[in-house]
Amino acid sequence: MTVVALCDGSIVQDPAHAVAVDDRGLNYGDGLFETALLRDGMVRFADAHLQRLEQGCNRLGIRFSRSDVERDIARIASEAREGVLKVVVTRGVGGRGYRGDPSAPTRRIVTLHPLPSSYPVEGLTVRWCELRLSRNPLLAGMKHLNRLEQVLAQNEWQDPDVAEGLMLDTEGELVCGTSSNVFIVRNGALLTPDLKFSGVRGVMRAQVLRAAQQLGWTSSEEPLWPHDLDDVSEVFVTNAVRGIRSVAALEDHRWESTAVAGQLRQVLLS
Amino acid sequence: MTVVALCDGSIVQDPAHAVAVDDRGLNYGDGLFETALLRDGMVRFADAHLQRLEQGCNRLGIRFSRSDVERDIARIASEAREGVLKVVVTRGVGGRGYRGDPSAPTRRIVTLHPLPSSYPVEGLTVRWCELRLSRNPLLAGMKHLNRLEQVLAQNEWQDPDVAEGLMLDTEGELVCGTSSNVFIVRNGALLTPDLKFSGVRGVMRAQVLRAAQQLGWTSSEEPLWPHDLDDVSEVFVTNAVRGIRSVAALEDHRWESTAVAGQLRQVLLS
Repeated sequence: MTVVALCDGSIVQDPAHAVAVDDRGLNYGDGLFETALLRDGMVRFADAHLQRLEQGCNRLGIRFSRSDVERDIARIASEAREGVLKVVVTRGVGGRGYRGDPSAPTRRIVTLHPLPSSYPVEGLTVRWCELRLSRNPLLAGMKHLNRLEQVLAQNEWQDPDVAEGLMLDTEGELVCGTSSNVFIVRNGALLTPDLKFSGVRGVMRAQVLRAAQQLGWTSSEEPLWPHDLDDVSEVFVTNAVRGIRSVAALEDHRWESTAVAGQLRQVLLS
Repeated sequence: MTVVALCDGSIVQDPAHAVAVDDRGLNYGDGLFETALLRDGMVRFADAHLQRLEQGCNRLGIRFSRSDVERDIARIASEAREGVLKVVVTRGVGGRGYRGDPSAPTRRIVTLHPLPSSYPVEGLTVRWCELRLSRNPLLAGMKHLNRLEQVLAQNEWQDPDVAEGLMLDTEGELVCGTSSNVFIVRNGALLTPDLKFSGVRGVMRAQVLRAAQQLGWTSSEEPLWPHDLDDVSEVFVTNAVRGIRSVAALEDHRWESTAVAGQLRQVLLS
């Protein structure tokens, strides 16, 4: 699955034996990650990925060197021109239990994986996940390594015709898909959950909001609930690797319009 | 820090390069752990640790072989007679994103660490943590690898005279210490949070509840709130490695009694 792997800037000869047993990413999920698209040797939205990673490190108190990660990415891109790039940073090794060792250097693990096989960008069937996301404003928005909720949610279904599961939080607010953000179009306005209590502030989500602004569209980040899907003309999900995908069906809901998503795909992804 | 390390039953020659880059424990916190005391070549409360690990694996859908872990522990105990034993199990490697590969074998990482340096079991000063624990009944009670909340909570203070931080959840319920469970004694009854929404069901916590029952004491697991500390005669925190430790001070609170904790230490730990 792994095409190339770097640990702390060095090519890993044996990806099956690479990470320390006391790495804090492994032991506590004490770190962050990014998943980006590498195409023609370039990372799509590289700056946005690096900015989010840096912001997450600042929030968690993990030291971050942007130039180190940029060098890793350049090294990967010199080995392979395309794939799914994953950057994991952890608070390094050791420390006394949960409390980290402030002198431990940040650990970087950068891997390249094959591109996903072809998939539709329109006509998606999605479902509701039963698992509810927990709320914690201190962790909300970050792409941290504590992802057990997403793992359990994706394991709720195996049907390959269901492209994504939409998730509510423990209070019933609509948050996201298991590995995507969600947008709705209502009366011509573009709406997406504000992610104050949970969820990941996706790189593609930010690009969509920026594009909407540039196009002069009305858009808003706000609390949304399942009933907000009742009177919408269009629904789509976004993800840095898979882009912008239009949803056609969610249980009894059917949506035919793909106009807004189509225009955003043209602006952002062509 | 690591005295002995086993991965999948084999002694690790180089603990700094042992775990796969695509291990799901590292990438998603997709696994569980146990921390136990090894003394005279025996794991204290071994059965309770193994039972909890098995229950956690069942809840997360991770395959578990008790005999494999027992063999690992015997192997460790043949190398060193005492220390802090840590068992990590993960959903193995790979899979498509969050969704695991159901054919991937469970990964076991068993390590032995030095015993903690000597510490008081009475007269502890504790503090309140600012970070609130998120609530998720589907994850509550398990010792899973998503521990970012505990990491951030322990990093709130560095004063070595503060032995533990007590944690509330996002609704304000008292849950636990950062790496311990908490008990209070009120009108002769032993009370501890019920952990329905967050927290770890500690092995030592279960031993205390069992001992209380055997001693004919009144005990209860129930929702507790900070104001429940206002009229209690005794407070103690429990942890499988450090045992049962009496709290003397928490901000304006002072507790002198250590009678209940002392009796439990005698019954369970001597």
